[in-house]
Amino acid sequence: MTTLHDIHKHEFGSDNYAGVHPEVLTALAEANGGHQVAYGRDAYTERLGAVIASHFGAQAQAFPVFNGTGANVLALQSMVPRWGAVICAETAHIATDENGAPERVGGLKLLTIPTPDGKLTPELIDREAWGWGDEHRAQPGVVSVTQTTELGTAYSLDELRAVADHAHELGMAVHLDGARLANAAAHLGVSLRALTTDVGIDVVSLGGTKNGLMFGELVVVLDPARSTGLTYMRKVNMQLASKMRFISAQFVTLLEGDLWLRSAQHANAMATRLRDAVVDIDGVRVTQSTDANAVFAALPAGAADRIREHAQFYDWDRATGEVRWMCSFDTTPADVDGFAQAVRAVLSS
Amino acid sequence: MTTLHDIHKHEFGSDNYAGVHPEVLTALAEANGGHQVAYGRDAYTERLGAVIASHFGAQAQAFPVFNGTGANVLALQSMVPRWGAVICAETAHIATDENGAPERVGGLKLLTIPTPDGKLTPELIDREAWGWGDEHRAQPGVVSVTQTTELGTAYSLDELRAVADHAHELGMAVHLDGARLANAAAHLGVSLRALTTDVGIDVVSLGGTKNGLMFGELVVVLDPARSTGLTYMRKVNMQLASKMRFISAQFVTLLEGDLWLRSAQHANAMATRLRDAVVDIDGVRVTQSTDANAVFAALPAGAADRIREHAQFYDWDRATGEVRWMCSFDTTPADVDGFAQAVRAVLSS
Amino acid sequence: MTTLHDIHKHEFGSDNYAGVHPEVLTALAEANGGHQVAYGRDAYTERLGAVIASHFGAQAQAFPVFNGTGANVLALQSMVPRWGAVICAETAHIATDENGAPERVGGLKLLTIPTPDGKLTPELIDREAWGWGDEHRAQPGVVSVTQTTELGTAYSLDELRAVADHAHELGMAVHLDGARLANAAAHLGVSLRALTTDVGIDVVSLGGTKNGLMFGELVVVLDPARSTGLTYMRKVNMQLASKMRFISAQFVTLLEGDLWLRSAQHANAMATRLRDAVVDIDGVRVTQSTDANAVFAALPAGAADRIREHAQFYDWDRATGEVRWMCSFDTTPADVDGFAQAVRAVLSS
Amino acid sequence: MTTLHDIHKHEFGSDNYAGVHPEVLTALAEANGGHQVAYGRDAYTERLGAVIASHFGAQAQAFPVFNGTGANVLALQSMVPRWGAVICAETAHIATDENGAPERVGGLKLLTIPTPDGKLTPELIDREAWGWGDEHRAQPGVVSVTQTTELGTAYSLDELRAVADHAHELGMAVHLDGARLANAAAHLGVSLRALTTDVGIDVVSLGGTKNGLMFGELVVVLDPARSTGLTYMRKVNMQLASKMRFISAQFVTLLEGDLWLRSAQHANAMATRLRDAVVDIDGVRVTQSTDANAVFAALPAGAADRIREHAQFYDWDRATGEVRWMCSFDTTPADVDGFAQAVRAVLSS
Repeated sequence: MTTLHDIHKHEFGSDNYAGVHPEVLTALAEANGGHQVAYGRDAYTERLGAVIASHFGAQAQAFPVFNGTGANVLALQSMVPRWGAVICAETAHIATDENGAPERVGGLKLLTIPTPDGKLTPELIDREAWGWGDEHRAQPGVVSVTQTTELGTAYSLDELRAVADHAHELGMAVHLDGARLANAAAHLGVSLRALTTDVGIDVVSLGGTKNGLMFGELVVVLDPARSTGLTYMRKVNMQLASKMRFISAQFVTLLEGDLWLRSAQHANAMATRLRDAVVDIDGVRVTQSTDANAVFAALPAGAADRIREHAQFYDWDRATGEVRWMCSFDTTPADVDGFAQAVRAVLSS
Repeated sequence: MTTLHDIHKHEFGSDNYAGVHPEVLTALAEANGGHQVAYGRDAYTERLGAVIASHFGAQAQAFPVFNGTGANVLALQSMVPRWGAVICAETAHIATDENGAPERVGGLKLLTIPTPDGKLTPELIDREAWGWGDEHRAQPGVVSVTQTTELGTAYSLDELRAVADHAHELGMAVHLDGARLANAAAHLGVSLRALTTDVGIDVVSLGGTKNGLMFGELVVVLDPARSTGLTYMRKVNMQLASKMRFISAQFVTLLEGDLWLRSAQHANAMATRLRDAVVDIDGVRVTQSTDANAVFAALPAGAADRIREHAQFYDWDRATGEVRWMCSFDTTPADVDGFAQAVRAVLSS
Repeated sequence: MTTLHDIHKHEFGSDNYAGVHPEVLTALAEANGGHQVAYGRDAYTERLGAVIASHFGAQAQAFPVFNGTGANVLALQSMVPRWGAVICAETAHIATDENGAPERVGGLKLLTIPTPDGKLTPELIDREAWGWGDEHRAQPGVVSVTQTTELGTAYSLDELRAVADHAHELGMAVHLDGARLANAAAHLGVSLRALTTDVGIDVVSLGGTKNGLMFGELVVVLDPARSTGLTYMRKVNMQLASKMRFISAQFVTLLEGDLWLRSAQHANAMATRLRDAVVDIDGVRVTQSTDANAVFAALPAGAADRIREHAQFYDWDRATGEVRWMCSFDTTPADVDGFAQAVRAVLSS
Repeated sequence: MTTLHDIHKHEFGSDNYAGVHPEVLTALAEANGGHQVAYGRDAYTERLGAVIASHFGAQAQAFPVFNGTGANVLALQSMVPRWGAVICAETAHIATDENGAPERVGGLKLLTIPTPDGKLTPELIDREAWGWGDEHRAQPGVVSVTQTTELGTAYSLDELRAVADHAHELGMAVHLDGARLANAAAHLGVSLRALTTDVGIDVVSLGGTKNGLMFGELVVVLDPARSTGLTYMRKVNMQLASKMRFISAQFVTLLEGDLWLRSAQHANAMATRLRDAVVDIDGVRVTQSTDANAVFAALPAGAADRIREHAQFYDWDRATGEVRWMCSFDTTPADVDGFAQAVRAVLSS
């Protein structure tokens, strides 16, 4: 096989349009060769356990899986009984982008709440946190937050702690969809532990693919008393990799040094650079705080398609003209500057 | 990260104890860099379509997924309605090794049939192929065969054709679990097409991981009229890879030349070498025809554990002392000879 | 066994607090004795078919089931593939009162829409009617309306037709949750056919229990091209009665004369009488149009519990003090007048 | 409505071809009138609790449901986690007659075992009772026995105790499908408690419909530590009756006196009478012990259809000519004698 694509072209479509970080590719080669017991009883998965403990605390357990939907469904299913419900933002990935996998595969009921910025608060949670003991109502058992949110915003530590405390007081557990948790840590300048264990998160879906891995996510259990059956359900849910060493080796490389942080910092910086470059352009209205690696902006009718002649990105809401511009670990300053120039050119023409 | 394991040690536990074929690792690097649209709209997945058509016929469509359980559940679910049942051998992987994923995630009912060698026949199928129109009975809608079987045996072309013809006459579709289809093709000396499309198979789960890939399997639809909804259900079933180019690139490398065949031939040859080396040892009784890359043998009580001091392998049936010795693309003649010597040493001591 | 309760006490809690209409009880005795083939191949289920055709048109098919949740899940599941979604009002029974049965048993994704009065409109539907072809989004396949709504309001024929036309234009089917369809027909003064078949409804969950039956609901398919697999899925969903003659005989009695209409008219009239009796009481604010057999009203803090000393009823929204007062076929004018007097007494004290 | 069928004709098809016992019909009328809180908070369901405790012990809890499939799926689901498996006989109703409801709705994996007479033994159970801790295997969590079995045979108390002790020693719970438990008690001359609680059964599906009720079964939990979530899952599984008083009143009537026993004794006696009348007819080979209300017999080719001109019954195995003749509470000696005469006439012609 030969390379079939332009290895220099970067889009603004998604952080999973990017490929694999070179250090991760090297790790895959280093983990290759010889035989290792399949399904997770290998040296790399063992090492991963130690790396995870160093980040999240000694009690933390990591379960490598294939993708983010798998991590989310598995995590949530491990936290509630068959009659449980999940409280989440209306914009949560589990609610909008997984074709009903949480409901259809997980047997979960989602109780969704409108938010202005993708973030739950104790007050918002209370809209759906009721009805325990009523057999007609799916029983709220877990609150799921996303950090950073689908709208590119980040919860502060205090905001997360308030959500977790409130959920716990009501007898619910707390799940964090951390497909872009590294971006939040980079934004807030805090450790992964400060952002999760220390504020009361019970189970995390920890993203790898969007931060430079080839494939692979982790379900990280921070409070083992809040999660049950992951070993079995990972197999049932078709998320158990036979050659697991290759997921684990990627995560070891990502997390044992600071690669996770460097990549996230870079992606965030590129988004900030982009926002700064477009915020004053006539016709561009930045709609969300640019806390991580995505810029949300509203454009005049017709503009988005013309800008897409320069690089790809997604419409967020066609009705309002809102678009999402996403940066990744390999987005370059030149990519950003060229794209901003294209935006300016289209809007001034 | 540095290498954490012995890259020269080979076991006889499973073909997924092996790592990645060097040509495949190279392909992963070649597919890296730049941005590609996620979720399968990339150049490598497009190329894969052409490669699959060249093997299986112009109508064939390939859907890359993460693992074999995912491929099987997805394939079967696409072939029957919500009230459908799957006829399969009692030893089928879907029945014994997937923790009920076909039932729990797929909502499928399995109608299992005892066989001496893992192979279904028209007569065996008839034991469960009845009851259409009776709402109390799960409606048999698909026959699932495994090639090569879980017992290391291979269907002949005539045997497969007889099964497929019979199923079709009864209005059922035919699924083939081809986690080791390459080994069957190597054994029979026929093309993948001869082994599937030409004998009437409708949908194939085509294995990659057990033949030297890092991860990834394909659902290959040979008769599009027999399969529906794969695009959507791949997402629902949490088998849709975001950076799909890396699954597709591996399969392109495996299939566009003869890597798939070379690796399978080698693994088969190593199993044959092993069988030949042990078949005359006192205490070893080879229990199945060694058609592919696995040797099944019965050993005296206590022998298996002592042989495992040399290399790992699985007990198949502790009650009867049957074990499975599996070879892979990277098993060497020296591995085999050393292992056979260990068997001989244990049994003569 | 002897009677264990006060057979003269009527509450305002729910139309399923009531017992069985005497004519229905007589029918159960008339259908008794002798043997009839189980699971629906009996004379009463056959007769029911003719009765349903006379109401809904010759193409209509009735599938007796046990309860309303069963009817709804079964109907909806028959209308969409495994990746389908259901658009409904946020207040729909399927969304709020069935403990996630549509999601957990039906594998359905609900796309819920806030409404002021429980009624969908084409404009409201458009908020969720999008994303076809996008594998990440549950595919909207059916619009589900409730008539009369959970808020005691009724769609006009024009309103229903607009919804159905819009849904059909978008390629979706239309389900009607008719647990209280008779009340709507009574309110509008139209036939069941005018209210369903003639405005474009495809499948109806037709209520019996809330209109004086002991148990039993019907899934009535009006457009057989929009529904598949009901025969099988009724069994799978555990809604197939062995002695089905006793569900069918009740429905024959309800529907072959005008019992269905008389009972609904009476229940509606009692609700109107109640509304008229309380609407001018200081402290009572009627919050919804009293189109059927329920009065929704907001009360001052503390009043509801004191009124409940007279008769039972449900809080609808504790935060706003809204309550629901429901009348049934056996509610008497004296019941209503006594209750209204109790309301007045509490609020004037 | 008028009666549409011959109220004097009795078949030998099934005990659910029969109607309702007159005492039960009376009870339905006695429970009628007035209002009772829906969904089980009524006086009859409360009384039922006391009646059940008197039969099964103070710790026993009864959950009324609609039908036997519902009772079985609900009971089993309450006894195992999402990754659990159920060991049962190959002929068990849950395996053969419920269109996969245990798998599809319950998410259960069934591990089925061939038996000569429908009865499990510790030795038979051991064929599937293994693999705990292996994530690839559905985890055996419950043994399900049927009493009387689908083949008309009854476990002795010792046989049941042996099964229960063995299951418990292995850490599994024990479910009893008692659709015809009354027939077993009548056969063995023991109490319901002796047959369940006292031999170590944990949860029972207690049949009503086949013993003269109109509709309704009970999940009876004997060991509350072995069952969880029934309250919620009854709603999720669409088995929660709104006018539950009418299920409970039937069971109170069945169980508070000896109606349950009289009816079962009568049905059993009619089967014995039938067996005695046919056992010596040339061409009839009784194939199972007639322990309860069913006679299993093999007939010469063609005979069954001619006998069916006299009364209906089911083929059990068309390949072997085996048929099932089932008696019920209302089968008369004259029915039996006339039928036996018809068998004799056909076989001697």
